[in-house]
Amino acid sequence: MSPRNYLRYILPDALFGTERTKEILHVNPTVEYVRKPVERVHISVYNYNESTLEVEQFDRVEDVYYCKDHGLISWINIDGIRKEDVEAVCAHFGIHPLLAEDILSCNQRPKMDEVEGVLYCLLNMLYFNKDESSVEQEQISVVLGRNFVITFQEDPDRDVFNPVRERLRMANSKVRQRPADYLCYSLLDLIVDNYFLVMERLGEKIEDLEEEVVRNATPIAMARITRLRKELIVLKRNILPVRDLVAAIIRSESDLLDERTEKYFKDVYDHIVQAADLSENYRDVMTSMQDLYINNVNLKMNEVMKVMAIVTCLLAPATVIGGIFGMNFDVIPMLHNKWGFFISVGLMLFIPLFMVRIFRRRGWF
Amino acid sequence: MSPRNYLRYILPDALFGTERTKEILHVNPTVEYVRKPVERVHISVYNYNESTLEVEQFDRVEDVYYCKDHGLISWINIDGIRKEDVEAVCAHFGIHPLLAEDILSCNQRPKMDEVEGVLYCLLNMLYFNKDESSVEQEQISVVLGRNFVITFQEDPDRDVFNPVRERLRMANSKVRQRPADYLCYSLLDLIVDNYFLVMERLGEKIEDLEEEVVRNATPIAMARITRLRKELIVLKRNILPVRDLVAAIIRSESDLLDERTEKYFKDVYDHIVQAADLSENYRDVMTSMQDLYINNVNLKMNEVMKVMAIVTCLLAPATVIGGIFGMNFDVIPMLHNKWGFFISVGLMLFIPLFMVRIFRRRGWF
Amino acid sequence: MSPRNYLRYILPDALFGTERTKEILHVNPTVEYVRKPVERVHISVYNYNESTLEVEQFDRVEDVYYCKDHGLISWINIDGIRKEDVEAVCAHFGIHPLLAEDILSCNQRPKMDEVEGVLYCLLNMLYFNKDESSVEQEQISVVLGRNFVITFQEDPDRDVFNPVRERLRMANSKVRQRPADYLCYSLLDLIVDNYFLVMERLGEKIEDLEEEVVRNATPIAMARITRLRKELIVLKRNILPVRDLVAAIIRSESDLLDERTEKYFKDVYDHIVQAADLSENYRDVMTSMQDLYINNVNLKMNEVMKVMAIVTCLLAPATVIGGIFGMNFDVIPMLHNKWGFFISVGLMLFIPLFMVRIFRRRGWF
Amino acid sequence: MSPRNYLRYILPDALFGTERTKEILHVNPTVEYVRKPVERVHISVYNYNESTLEVEQFDRVEDVYYCKDHGLISWINIDGIRKEDVEAVCAHFGIHPLLAEDILSCNQRPKMDEVEGVLYCLLNMLYFNKDESSVEQEQISVVLGRNFVITFQEDPDRDVFNPVRERLRMANSKVRQRPADYLCYSLLDLIVDNYFLVMERLGEKIEDLEEEVVRNATPIAMARITRLRKELIVLKRNILPVRDLVAAIIRSESDLLDERTEKYFKDVYDHIVQAADLSENYRDVMTSMQDLYINNVNLKMNEVMKVMAIVTCLLAPATVIGGIFGMNFDVIPMLHNKWGFFISVGLMLFIPLFMVRIFRRRGWF
Amino acid sequence: MSPRNYLRYILPDALFGTERTKEILHVNPTVEYVRKPVERVHISVYNYNESTLEVEQFDRVEDVYYCKDHGLISWINIDGIRKEDVEAVCAHFGIHPLLAEDILSCNQRPKMDEVEGVLYCLLNMLYFNKDESSVEQEQISVVLGRNFVITFQEDPDRDVFNPVRERLRMANSKVRQRPADYLCYSLLDLIVDNYFLVMERLGEKIEDLEEEVVRNATPIAMARITRLRKELIVLKRNILPVRDLVAAIIRSESDLLDERTEKYFKDVYDHIVQAADLSENYRDVMTSMQDLYINNVNLKMNEVMKVMAIVTCLLAPATVIGGIFGMNFDVIPMLHNKWGFFISVGLMLFIPLFMVRIFRRRGWF
Ligand SMILES: [Mg+2]
Ligand SMILES: [Mg+2]
Ligand SMILES: [Mg+2]
Ligand SMILES: [Mg+2]
Ligand SMILES: [Mg+2]
Ligand SMILES: [Mg+2]
Ligand SMILES: [Mg+2]
Ligand SMILES: [Mg+2]
Ligand SMILES: [Mg+2]
Ligand SMILES: [Mg+2]
Ligand SMILES: [Mg+2]
Ligand SMILES: [Mg+2]
Ligand SMILES: [Mg+2]
Ligand SMILES: [Mg+2]
Ligand SMILES: [Mg+2]
Ligand SMILES: [Mg+2]
Ligand SMILES: [Mg+2]
Ligand SMILES: [Mg+2]
Ligand SMILES: [Mg+2]
Ligand SMILES: [Mg+2]
Ligand SMILES: [Mg+2]
Ligand SMILES: [Mg+2]
Ligand SMILES: [Mg+2]
Ligand SMILES: [Mg+2]
Ligand SMILES: [Mg+2]
Ligand SMILES: [Mg+2]
Ligand SMILES: [Mg+2]
Ligand SMILES: [Mg+2]
Ligand SMILES: [Mg+2]
Ligand SMILES: [Mg+2]
Ligand SMILES: [Mg+2]
Repeated sequence: MSPRNYLRYILPDALFGTERTKEILHVNPTVEYVRKPVERVHISVYNYNESTLEVEQFDRVEDVYYCKDHGLISWINIDGIRKEDVEAVCAHFGIHPLLAEDILSCNQRPKMDEVEGVLYCLLNMLYFNKDESSVEQEQISVVLGRNFVITFQEDPDRDVFNPVRERLRMANSKVRQRPADYLCYSLLDLIVDNYFLVMERLGEKIEDLEEEVVRNATPIAMARITRLRKELIVLKRNILPVRDLVAAIIRSESDLLDERTEKYFKDVYDHIVQAADLSENYRDVMTSMQDLYINNVNLKMNEVMKVMAIVTCLLAPATVIGGIFGMNFDVIPMLHNKWGFFISVGLMLFIPLFMVRIFRRRGWF
Repeated sequence: MSPRNYLRYILPDALFGTERTKEILHVNPTVEYVRKPVERVHISVYNYNESTLEVEQFDRVEDVYYCKDHGLISWINIDGIRKEDVEAVCAHFGIHPLLAEDILSCNQRPKMDEVEGVLYCLLNMLYFNKDESSVEQEQISVVLGRNFVITFQEDPDRDVFNPVRERLRMANSKVRQRPADYLCYSLLDLIVDNYFLVMERLGEKIEDLEEEVVRNATPIAMARITRLRKELIVLKRNILPVRDLVAAIIRSESDLLDERTEKYFKDVYDHIVQAADLSENYRDVMTSMQDLYINNVNLKMNEVMKVMAIVTCLLAPATVIGGIFGMNFDVIPMLHNKWGFFISVGLMLFIPLFMVRIFRRRGWF
Repeated sequence: MSPRNYLRYILPDALFGTERTKEILHVNPTVEYVRKPVERVHISVYNYNESTLEVEQFDRVEDVYYCKDHGLISWINIDGIRKEDVEAVCAHFGIHPLLAEDILSCNQRPKMDEVEGVLYCLLNMLYFNKDESSVEQEQISVVLGRNFVITFQEDPDRDVFNPVRERLRMANSKVRQRPADYLCYSLLDLIVDNYFLVMERLGEKIEDLEEEVVRNATPIAMARITRLRKELIVLKRNILPVRDLVAAIIRSESDLLDERTEKYFKDVYDHIVQAADLSENYRDVMTSMQDLYINNVNLKMNEVMKVMAIVTCLLAPATVIGGIFGMNFDVIPMLHNKWGFFISVGLMLFIPLFMVRIFRRRGWF
Repeated sequence: MSPRNYLRYILPDALFGTERTKEILHVNPTVEYVRKPVERVHISVYNYNESTLEVEQFDRVEDVYYCKDHGLISWINIDGIRKEDVEAVCAHFGIHPLLAEDILSCNQRPKMDEVEGVLYCLLNMLYFNKDESSVEQEQISVVLGRNFVITFQEDPDRDVFNPVRERLRMANSKVRQRPADYLCYSLLDLIVDNYFLVMERLGEKIEDLEEEVVRNATPIAMARITRLRKELIVLKRNILPVRDLVAAIIRSESDLLDERTEKYFKDVYDHIVQAADLSENYRDVMTSMQDLYINNVNLKMNEVMKVMAIVTCLLAPATVIGGIFGMNFDVIPMLHNKWGFFISVGLMLFIPLFMVRIFRRRGWF
Repeated sequence: MSPRNYLRYILPDALFGTERTKEILHVNPTVEYVRKPVERVHISVYNYNESTLEVEQFDRVEDVYYCKDHGLISWINIDGIRKEDVEAVCAHFGIHPLLAEDILSCNQRPKMDEVEGVLYCLLNMLYFNKDESSVEQEQISVVLGRNFVITFQEDPDRDVFNPVRERLRMANSKVRQRPADYLCYSLLDLIVDNYFLVMERLGEKIEDLEEEVVRNATPIAMARITRLRKELIVLKRNILPVRDLVAAIIRSESDLLDERTEKYFKDVYDHIVQAADLSENYRDVMTSMQDLYINNVNLKMNEVMKVMAIVTCLLAPATVIGGIFGMNFDVIPMLHNKWGFFISVGLMLFIPLFMVRIFRRRGWF
């Protein structure tokens, strides 16, 4: 066993999450399609207007081609991203190949684009993984066209859109009475609202960690601080560009955006700005906590030093006195006095007590 | 009792205020209505113009419906926020449902909005809690419409508006002679003025803490530094967005804002900018103080190290000399000399004194 | 005497200037008039044009009412700020009540305002207090109207305007030949020029402190660093807003400002920008110095550790050898050899010397 | 061997890469031509339109003069930069001498320029040197004119343009069907895409380093941190200006840029902004890692201190007891008791065990 | 000799350059003329157009009055700044008195101004002083008027303009064929180019220092770090304002600037932006280096602690065993065994070896 590994005795290195660093740093949106192949694609379609609602499920993209210009508003949600599918759908609905490339990309920075009569938003839904205390992301593309919204998701098992599905089922809900841009707003709103839930979970972790740091500044706490700081990077990386995304929609003069919907996007903007502020607060609290950790570690070391100092001081006179009367000189005073031993042991006890009292007064112990 | 808890011996962990971290970090404006149910709503109405003043108290929101277009300016102050009430009032006075949602929200970032002929300000009144040394906030919504101002408060027991109430009672006060936007200004002005009172209290705490750090750099001081840094987050989170809020009012071209009132909002702007500067100064002072704390802790440790060094040096010759003359060799010089003992003990005293003198000169002690 | 106060033995706590923190942090411009009552008001009036100059002294504000529209340019300097006076003067000269409030306020952030035909500047004159090594400020309000400049000062005993007074006495000086805005420029120019004198004094203190830190990194030096960092807050707080103030004058399109005077205000702007840069440099130097201080403190501690290490190493063999030959076994080699004692003492000397040599080589001592 | 060099025992100083500092800091774009003379210049020419493609190789710049206004689009790639050549080519193709100077310069900051009907981009291709763990750069100039693109490279042995070469060989590729600006886009796109590959390599190094820091915080890890921070400087220095470069192309209103190409440059912009964000994340991770390193070093030292404290405490009673019963008094209790020795040795064992138990409880060990 | 001065033993305090702090911080551009009187003024005049060149030397400013409106372009370089001269020249050539004041000022921030038909640039030429490792500056004023450029330098012994002088001597050089603004550009270009030479020298110092820090982290290295950080202040103070200066020239719409010269000023702008970036990189490297220094100092201290720990551990059993068998009990086992001594000494050797082995395994040594 090599001495280079000694920290392993103390800390299980899984604690530090070096694999997580890999995931956070290896973000390359330019490489060709690296997702693992999707076995089946799940497509759900909501065709609706104020009075009608049709909900349908498909598993071939060709089945949704009818949704173009058929009088109703269509929300086509495609779970599972496959190169052929995305390209076919984009070709059919007049979505530029560059956008198709963005939809297919992994790990891209959130962004908004208007290309040839289509408004495109790429961002991530965030989920909090309780087991790993990590922030997971699922990329979502929202394409707003004339009378349709197409959403592309990576993971068929989860999304944050159920409240919209419920509202679509209610004929008197606003989303049924407004054009497609209101549906687009509703989706973005839910994604941003969900950021707060994730941050709340993360905030609980931060609070727990702070309590641990306060009570017991072990290296494990430092490992946890390091881990959480990585999650804050994920958070910041997702929130700041979404702020720009929403601001760009508000500034946009696209025909696809009804003037009456603007105030709704402003409402989303309020929330995303607050999320950005809050993630800044998280950083401040983490900085404060790390300072506190370092301080507590030092405090612990100072305690050890003080113990050593006390023991050293107590030892000092006893050792010297013992040495003095252990010398082999012929003539040593008191050696033949029957109280000599007791006097010397008394001094051994008294002097350190006296020293401790002086040191106490000066505030050292 | 586990060794993991040793810091508890030294520090009561309440000192560090980890619950406060929870309050500061768990800020989610997107969730549905989480306030505890309000038992009774207190409504006060001031109807006034230059010559008339009617003051009334109600406890049902329906009672204030008459305040719309009745010739006088109305200030309707609603203490206690209840979903049904807010929605009813908003519907009656033509306030957009999104604004109703903002009024009902908790922990929202201060913001200003103009929606359909209404100017809406959401911000927090701050109070200083002396017992906890914490900054408390109460959300307040100010809705400025044509001839009315409606304010929604969370807590019926306190607000900062008494000076306005007094001025309204005086027929010759400016607020009586000007349109409703002047009343709106007066309310914002008082809220911002109150920030300074809160900062003054906080400043006193900072000063006391600095004195504690200077005199006695204990871990308790570090705990207090950590706590105050959290309160500064609350402060910053409230002040910076209010600066933008006031700036947005000044830039606004709403019909509701009389041109003559602009300079009054500029006066509020001066103050909020100064509050922002000042909170920045607080941060600088806290940083300085933390540096000082760390320095004083190190200083203390250095003192302990010096004591150990001194004792070590004093012990050194005595121990060695004692050891030398305690050896059992047959031939040891001076052993049979009757002054031998005294000479050796003299050396034990003289050598350390000499060493200390040398070390003193070199500045170690 | 409690151990909590031990630092007092080492440091006189006045050194840290916690009272100064109070002065710096307790800045509230919103409270009512808190100046101590002024006993007498000193008013000096300069009425001038290119050919005439009248200098007069009054002590009642009513005496200067004649200075409005009497054909000459008037500089009315009022030393001592009294509520009634300021309000009377403002009413007479058409200065808006909000500006009167600003004149009366304490500790306000420097600002510039144009209200109803009057250009108003509020800023601070700085003085360096040698005894306290602190930056003192005196608030000054400069009101530029059509053909008059009114200045309000707090302290009758000092200001920085004597060079302007001299130039006014010279008929051929520029200030006599130009409109009132040139006088206003001259006053601001002198205030800003004076900032450099204050910074020079502060710079000397910084340099002295650096020398102290270099030679002797005692806690006293750290206390001084803490104090100077507070003064830099005062400096920054005064300089940055004045930069904006002057920039606002340059951008202003007020009729009161002659086009030919603009380049003079640009000259002031150059200087205030440089002052801002310089105060940034001061911060950098202070940061560097604190790093150096911490380094030197560590250096001192390392020296102490080295002494302990040396003594420990020298003691080691002597103690062990003494112990070995002090044991009471029947058979101990060399015990009966007459050179035994000398050999063992020789080893006690030789081994540590050998150890020291090895350690020296490895760079430890 | 001087003691000043002791660190060399511990660390091979090549680890710290001081030569790399030289390369990073000595960046002077203003000096005259310092490249080592190029022996041979490699020129490749692609002349193409939708239907035709001619690929040719030359080694004299005069041979490509025919590429001007011959009806096809030309991509002239010149590997190896020689003053005479660059000046001749620039003169022939109407490129301003200032641009010729930029092409010849070394180490210049990436920039974009439009001078007299030519659009000029200067930036660096990055490569990751695995052996040195360093980011290497090769300057590339891209000149877009009417119907031609000229690229100047320093190193004939490598570039990142092979994918473009392949696409040019396919008649139905977009690059064949569009004007020269699309070729220019394709080149920039590949350069930026390659940044991600380099960052991925660097990210792997960071991750490996983190694992090393976690497991074994040796000075070698600190040396590696220092090295990687230098590479991050190189990264930042290349990425941020390229962001401005691409933004300037998008804003440009040059005739050379087809309106339809704009969205492609926006795609490059998305990627370069993401690269900038990511390099910011790298910095954050490195900061976190350095904090962790320092913490682990302190942890190690605290362990050593604890061992010393334990040994000191265990020694304390044994030394004192040994000294007490080693004194030569006539009357020492128990000395003649046959269990005396065993009792004293028992105490020597029992007392430290008792002490350790107390200290354990208080969390010191 | 007082203990307060102990650091002097270790460090020659000249190393820290506190005088340099004085020079850097005491920058007051507002005081009256503080240069030491100039004994003689050196004036060189270049009158030129495309076909003619006259070079002349004078020592009285009146001699150059003829250079106004005489058909040729004049470059008047005045070495040595004297109040009377500057004012006379400015009066003659129509340069505003405020600019004369700037020319006369010391230590002013670089700036550009257009006043009454004259374009004025004030900046510093930088030189690297090898002996002091400091950045020296010489203030230079460049006045561009219709057909003339006047430069004012402080130091007659050096400037950076020789390459321009050479080019002026060549009839076919661009500077001879263009208006006066091209000469102005050439001068600024040379000043900025020279910044890179100075930075290169400074970069070499930084690299040398890094090598010293890596090999031997003595307090001398820390002193050098402190010094270099001061020089970086000088660098930043000169470079950032010059960037604004050049940008202001590019934005300017002065008649004095030919449209064709703009691209040349843009070329200077490229360089000054790169210089600004580079000086930022210098800061980063210095920060990294200081971290490394602190780390190496800690490393050294940890080594010392380890030696102490080793010695303490080796001593522990020997001291205790020696004490045990040195006690004077009647009954001590093994005392009369002839191998007793050797067994006990054997234990003294064996136990520490065993301990060391255990500690090694756990990574402490
Ligand atoms: Mg791994
Ligand atoms: Mg999904
Ligand atoms: Mg929302
Ligand atoms: Mg909502
Ligand atoms: Mg934004
Ligand atoms: Mg809202
Ligand atoms: Mg809790
Ligand atoms: Mg209330
Ligand atoms: Mg106010
Ligand atoms: Mg007020
Ligand atoms: Mg603002
Ligand atoms: Mg005011
Ligand atoms: Mg430390
Ligand atoms: Mg006090
Ligand atoms: Mg005064
Ligand atoms: Mg001035
Ligand atoms: Mg002046
Ligand atoms: Mg400015
Ligand atoms: Mg000037
Ligand atoms: Mg080297
Ligand atoms: Mg190449
Ligand atoms: Mg790309
Ligand atoms: Mg691509
Ligand atoms: Mg940009
Ligand atoms: Mg893309
Ligand atoms: Mg000096
Ligand atoms: Mg010169
Ligand atoms: Mg140049
Ligand atoms: Mg050049
Ligand atoms: Mg710029
Ligand atoms: Mg160039």
